[in-house]
Amino acid sequence: MYVQQIRDGAIKPKTKSRIARNGASTALLDAKWGVGQPTCIRAMNMAIEKARKNGVGSVGIYNCNHIGRLGDYVMMAVERNMIGIVFANSDPSVAPFGGMSRVLGANPMSFGIPAGKEKPVIVDFASSVTAEGKIRAAFLKGKSVPENWILDSEGRPTTNPGDFYGPPYPPHGVNVIGAQLPAGGHKGFALGMIVDILGGALTGSGCGSDMKVGNGVFVQAIDVKRFVPIGKFRSTVDKLIREIKTSPKAEGVTEILVPGEPEFRAREERIKSGIAIPDAIWSGIIDVAAKLKVDLDRIIANPEP
Amino acid sequence: MYVQQIRDGAIKPKTKSRIARNGASTALLDAKWGVGQPTCIRAMNMAIEKARKNGVGSVGIYNCNHIGRLGDYVMMAVERNMIGIVFANSDPSVAPFGGMSRVLGANPMSFGIPAGKEKPVIVDFASSVTAEGKIRAAFLKGKSVPENWILDSEGRPTTNPGDFYGPPYPPHGVNVIGAQLPAGGHKGFALGMIVDILGGALTGSGCGSDMKVGNGVFVQAIDVKRFVPIGKFRSTVDKLIREIKTSPKAEGVTEILVPGEPEFRAREERIKSGIAIPDAIWSGIIDVAAKLKVDLDRIIANPEP
Repeated sequence: MYVQQIRDGAIKPKTKSRIARNGASTALLDAKWGVGQPTCIRAMNMAIEKARKNGVGSVGIYNCNHIGRLGDYVMMAVERNMIGIVFANSDPSVAPFGGMSRVLGANPMSFGIPAGKEKPVIVDFASSVTAEGKIRAAFLKGKSVPENWILDSEGRPTTNPGDFYGPPYPPHGVNVIGAQLPAGGHKGFALGMIVDILGGALTGSGCGSDMKVGNGVFVQAIDVKRFVPIGKFRSTVDKLIREIKTSPKAEGVTEILVPGEPEFRAREERIKSGIAIPDAIWSGIIDVAAKLKVDLDRIIANPEP
Repeated sequence: MYVQQIRDGAIKPKTKSRIARNGASTALLDAKWGVGQPTCIRAMNMAIEKARKNGVGSVGIYNCNHIGRLGDYVMMAVERNMIGIVFANSDPSVAPFGGMSRVLGANPMSFGIPAGKEKPVIVDFASSVTAEGKIRAAFLKGKSVPENWILDSEGRPTTNPGDFYGPPYPPHGVNVIGAQLPAGGHKGFALGMIVDILGGALTGSGCGSDMKVGNGVFVQAIDVKRFVPIGKFRSTVDKLIREIKTSPKAEGVTEILVPGEPEFRAREERIKSGIAIPDAIWSGIIDVAAKLKVDLDRIIANPEP
């Protein structure tokens, strides 16, 4: 997707973001359609710096390409003893509660919380029932998806992810023709609107159908020690995590997982054993490498960046 | 509930809050167990003042009694062309995702967004499937509640709100012995943890089982004009609301409602026609008035405060 967007001129890989507005606890970045990730790293670093000085820092980004996984940015705040928050709106793919066509983006939100001896709490989820990536993974594996995840292009419920995409179909491109459903009915819909407004209206990126590509991004860092000593905060969070994990389990449940725990475990496992890549994605990577005359074998043999 | 808490000494009605810490964009209030509502009004006014100076203001409250409806405080920010946010944790009543006993509070969150010609967007919901007040209303009316709302004291699913409460039972007191379930499964659970940590750990109020009474409160105001002109923001929000309301409706749905719309309509209707009070609550009010030698008939005839 990124390579195609660079070839199309949608991502301008050599462009750097510009500070459009700057205040004591706020700033606005114009990403100028460069690569999304370094701009969001810059935004979170600015938010952290403002939070260090004034207790809270909030930074918006517009003209911004896809920023990838939100949890990575809130971790930057967590590593500096701060609470990190990222909201990102995106092009329409989710129906409102009571609706049947896509109006809001998947509009993910992320919160990162420093703990003590326990792992940080990392919340990172779409306001839709599921992330689009999981629908795409099912499509690429030829599997169906659970009920209440998606509607087809006519607004009818379906479990076939093939009804959700139009040509050129993944892995050649993501062309959504159906709609996702909001998580938890009206509550996920409400959160999706808030993410659309903070990411889109507050930053000037645009909301709803005006959001065509990339993400409208709102990041925030809150310096814990402006409220309570960090040691007290860490021990309170640890105690809460342990209360949750040791509380009685529902029938058939062997362990209660706190937000971020599955991802930290997957990370450890993948550092040890490598990352499994679905065949369809791997053949897509081989195609792209061949088109760009990139020697994949050499890179795999010597993977340093 | 409030009268009983005043008689028990839990609410100290003449006590005023104290500023425990104060910074450029942050503050911490010690509510000293006074009445919750005026303290939260003070906190939001401080957040608004800090946002006016620095773009964002965040204020925490500890030793705080119940603050009531969160949506009222975010409206204070909305009326000043700001985004308002309130998170409030409370005593345990919700099971974690995969659990069967209460560990987290209902932990509501509220966001208020200024619009232009449309009504403001007011999100105000518990991280549980439903607010405790709706379970209590069903109990007082002798009705059952939908499946997936509550568990009994042994962690078994039930639709009888009588399994959720112990003596002295509403309207004489709220003694939760069962557990509520989180909204949207793991997503509502994750949000509930974030509210517990921002309202409880960041403010020193306490989390989980350390949260015995009242609310741990985190409020924030964000000054829109530090990011984009308020007129542009208002028209973007209006456009989004109209796109949502005019989008195709699911089968059987006559209107898509945006967050806050049902409450604004109820408000208009009740200003016109009065507020219906369930018999059990009304007889509770008569009992309390008699005990306190309050002349209810005189107050009803002359309702000015």
